[in-house]
Amino acid sequence: MPTYAAPVDDLAYVLTQVLEVQRLANLPAYADLSPDFIQDFLRGAADICEGVAQPLNQPGDSEGCRWENGSVFTPQGFRQAYKAFADGGWIGLAFDPDHGGKGLPGVLAESFYEMLAGANLAFSGYIELSEAVFTAIAAHGTDAQKRLYLPKLASGEWTGAMHLTEAHAGSDLGRVRTRAEPAGDGSYRLHGSKIFITNAEHDLADNIVNLVLARLPDGPPGARGLSLFLVPKHLPDADGNPGARNAVHCASLEHKMGLRAAPTGVIVYEGAVGELVGQPHRGLQAMFTMVNDARLGVALQGLGIAEVACQNAAHYARERHQGRVPGADAGGEAQPIIGHPDVRAMLLTQRSFIDGARALGLWVAMQIDLSRLHPDPDERRRADERAALLTPVIKAHFTDRGSEAANLALQCHGGHGFIREYGIEQFVRDVRVTQLYEGTNGIQALDLVRRKLALDEGRTLAALLDEMADAAVRSRAVPAAACFGAALESALADLRRATDWMNGQVGAAPVEAAGGATDYLRLFGLVAVGWMWVRMATVSARALDAGSGDPAFHRRKLAVGRFYMDRTLPETALLARRVARGAEGIMELDAAAF
Amino acid sequence: MPTYAAPVDDLAYVLTQVLEVQRLANLPAYADLSPDFIQDFLRGAADICEGVAQPLNQPGDSEGCRWENGSVFTPQGFRQAYKAFADGGWIGLAFDPDHGGKGLPGVLAESFYEMLAGANLAFSGYIELSEAVFTAIAAHGTDAQKRLYLPKLASGEWTGAMHLTEAHAGSDLGRVRTRAEPAGDGSYRLHGSKIFITNAEHDLADNIVNLVLARLPDGPPGARGLSLFLVPKHLPDADGNPGARNAVHCASLEHKMGLRAAPTGVIVYEGAVGELVGQPHRGLQAMFTMVNDARLGVALQGLGIAEVACQNAAHYARERHQGRVPGADAGGEAQPIIGHPDVRAMLLTQRSFIDGARALGLWVAMQIDLSRLHPDPDERRRADERAALLTPVIKAHFTDRGSEAANLALQCHGGHGFIREYGIEQFVRDVRVTQLYEGTNGIQALDLVRRKLALDEGRTLAALLDEMADAAVRSRAVPAAACFGAALESALADLRRATDWMNGQVGAAPVEAAGGATDYLRLFGLVAVGWMWVRMATVSARALDAGSGDPAFHRRKLAVGRFYMDRTLPETALLARRVARGAEGIMELDAAAF
Repeated sequence: MPTYAAPVDDLAYVLTQVLEVQRLANLPAYADLSPDFIQDFLRGAADICEGVAQPLNQPGDSEGCRWENGSVFTPQGFRQAYKAFADGGWIGLAFDPDHGGKGLPGVLAESFYEMLAGANLAFSGYIELSEAVFTAIAAHGTDAQKRLYLPKLASGEWTGAMHLTEAHAGSDLGRVRTRAEPAGDGSYRLHGSKIFITNAEHDLADNIVNLVLARLPDGPPGARGLSLFLVPKHLPDADGNPGARNAVHCASLEHKMGLRAAPTGVIVYEGAVGELVGQPHRGLQAMFTMVNDARLGVALQGLGIAEVACQNAAHYARERHQGRVPGADAGGEAQPIIGHPDVRAMLLTQRSFIDGARALGLWVAMQIDLSRLHPDPDERRRADERAALLTPVIKAHFTDRGSEAANLALQCHGGHGFIREYGIEQFVRDVRVTQLYEGTNGIQALDLVRRKLALDEGRTLAALLDEMADAAVRSRAVPAAACFGAALESALADLRRATDWMNGQVGAAPVEAAGGATDYLRLFGLVAVGWMWVRMATVSARALDAGSGDPAFHRRKLAVGRFYMDRTLPETALLARRVARGAEGIMELDAAAF
Repeated sequence: MPTYAAPVDDLAYVLTQVLEVQRLANLPAYADLSPDFIQDFLRGAADICEGVAQPLNQPGDSEGCRWENGSVFTPQGFRQAYKAFADGGWIGLAFDPDHGGKGLPGVLAESFYEMLAGANLAFSGYIELSEAVFTAIAAHGTDAQKRLYLPKLASGEWTGAMHLTEAHAGSDLGRVRTRAEPAGDGSYRLHGSKIFITNAEHDLADNIVNLVLARLPDGPPGARGLSLFLVPKHLPDADGNPGARNAVHCASLEHKMGLRAAPTGVIVYEGAVGELVGQPHRGLQAMFTMVNDARLGVALQGLGIAEVACQNAAHYARERHQGRVPGADAGGEAQPIIGHPDVRAMLLTQRSFIDGARALGLWVAMQIDLSRLHPDPDERRRADERAALLTPVIKAHFTDRGSEAANLALQCHGGHGFIREYGIEQFVRDVRVTQLYEGTNGIQALDLVRRKLALDEGRTLAALLDEMADAAVRSRAVPAAACFGAALESALADLRRATDWMNGQVGAAPVEAAGGATDYLRLFGLVAVGWMWVRMATVSARALDAGSGDPAFHRRKLAVGRFYMDRTLPETALLARRVARGAEGIMELDAAAF
């Protein structure tokens, strides 16, 4: 049975010492972020994630969700657990207090989401999807929609779901065929069906607020002709309570590799009553309002699963006695396998990715906060562009490497890793979806090179690379961190070279750019995580020099970080060379020859 | 529903054009290996694998095996399928004809095993494990044991199972506690229990021939005190028919990540009657008689799953229309995703590994054949050492990269990859075990650096590296292959440098050697597959020059191979540098700090 200890100290370290969020106390929502407040928040989040969500993770996977005559029943215990999170005030953490939210900054909400994903990924979706729906209605809904729906979502009384994909419209949402006919009374009737829709039907809440992409009769073809509709499971009555059942139904559930405690299935609209959210034909743009948050959320899911998998692998490696480790005397008792360099290297590969990625993920969350909260509009724009630039990088990189980490954690278990009882194989199955949903990782790479490099005519990227270089320079003043900076400078040169190449191709030779995009994203991700390691090394080396904090904690950070800089980061040279090959040799075979 | 087309043409190409097995016609078993005979054999094998085993793969996974009061029931259809393979003569292909086998060379049997793994990995074990038991009894059994058991195994009337692992004895078999007490009549009574035992109980055959590692009362502690016992499920009666039920029972089955149609569970011995096989206290050595075959078999499982996964990914990528590919005009119909460079690169990564690995796997199979069949004892020894050297490399490398390939194939499916109906996620789950069983891949790396580099005082390895270099030199004479040779030479220099480093460490600094072992094995695997690509490129470029064979086939080989040499192989430089870091930075953290 796997265990999970939420990484409270590591999160607090990133927030208070690396990102120093307390220095943003002039921003609304950041005013209360003293180290004590943060510690208390994280401890409370850890308690409920560890105590309520985690124990249901493995049973939830075994039992799965059950479909019966259009109703979906969640696994045993999920109703009570959901109620505990709602009652405890863990839903709507970052929502606007005017609509019932807690008004906390995104950096704290995202810290909570990482823990929740590590504790129970399937369960986390019931809470996170409500946030996406809340954000869309808050940004685009009418006052009446906000008054009716937002407080119910913020309290957790109702949950939310997003309806995008159709059988022929996955990455290519422009081909959505679900129709919305005006009913003459200002409302609409929706007809059609969608697939791969998660949490649109379940038994956790009294009502479900569905946001559905559909096409109006006068909607032009393609992505620019889609509108967003609010289609509640139960139509609210005059008092705002769930009334008549709406004609939106779950026709079946998919059998999935993982995430089995979250219902994903086919949804049909048979004249379902909907209200328009935002402008007609602007539905896709409205959805993309929250794409940075949603993709950051998925990135943190990859990270959260890597964390819990790594913890269990380390536990197993300490407890499992088997043979003798290299360099030990012959004979004697069996020794824990954590003495094997290979097992340690697997654990350090996981851990050094996790700790660095956590800092980078929360840095992105802070940019999203700044993009909304900063008083200066130029700062807001800059922060928004930084978040937009890094979003595809962390979505793809954290989920690719999160999957690799979970697989390494399984490998540390030897044959036991293949047995369901140990729980580690569930992490491998669950995390696999994060590389696929919210845009496959290949889509993220295209988004990065086609749209994000050009933000502010390339100045967003240039400024970020300069900031990375500055961090390397600053590390030189701290002896134990200087080697981190030197390693980053070398990797950064690879990233600059690849970026120059990519900028030269992306307009002129789109096939070449696409050919290098995935390697470029990985290169970018490796460097960005390395940048965070330089910052952390500088902080921890200074703390050791000053004798502040727990020296064991900081020494561990330096040791883990050195592994990253020495072993993981040097892949950048190989990647930079491969990026510059573009699509060379990739396009010549006929499709039939594959 | 996934499909599978056995790679008959590719196997025939490797056997007849690359390895030229027909040139070994002077060897017994190779005498009949004309290209026509090989083609007929492969076509027959393909027909039964595609037609009988493959259709049961997905249903078998869904249904799994069922345990009931100690009996195990295989999924629907498995009994009939097993009978079809037995009746068709597909069991015992390479067994000694004196004991009922077909006497075919290992290269053909292994070609069949690759297909069978691709068609239905769980089913393949019922046949392959019998081979391991046959080989052990043939090598170490008494004449009476051979007479009684071998023909039954060869005909498929009875099946076999190997009983090694115990709860505290996995990689460390020396800690096996199962006891064997002499009964006074030459037989023994076994007491104890084992875990993770596969196919020791099922309903496919009338009897199961179990080989069990256990300790005699006078067995010294450790691996050198274990003996091997033959413990049939039913004790044969005087006529050699299954008689009284033996006291060896399946107490429970494990719930596994994959391979669910193969029963793996706890076996208990409650005074089970056993016969000694081979010498007392020499049981482990007897088991290791067939370790090269068994690990080659697992390597080919990794390859077989990669093949079927890649086929299905290519099929999906051709059929799935979604958006526009880079460089296409805006507007118009959705285009197949195989037009995306990223999707093609994923497919080429898989395919270029698969085709190269197939040649290397069959080269190892040929060495095993030569080690048994060659008239010259020196040649036999050299071939045996070559097989021994390459065995850990292909076991770990093919299964690691097979897993990567299956995951890439899943990724090509986008969200559909996560849905069980498409079948691709089963390949990812099934293949995962190949990295764990028959010695985890970490164990393979230690075996390679600790035992295999030193074979014949290093001459085995040196001769192999020279042969690789020769292949590169020979490729220079063929213009279209010369670039393959140049790429191999560069990678080979990395392997030589890493080998020199490793040879310097392995005796003097075992921790350093262990720290570099896994990267060294990957480096070795990449180069060895690259060597096969040089050989294939030379063959195919010559065929194109001579106008012989199907030019499309050979052009495809060259295009796929160039991708390997340009994109995959250059990782060797990074790996060589990482190998030479040894255990640097890996050992300093306390176990508790992970």
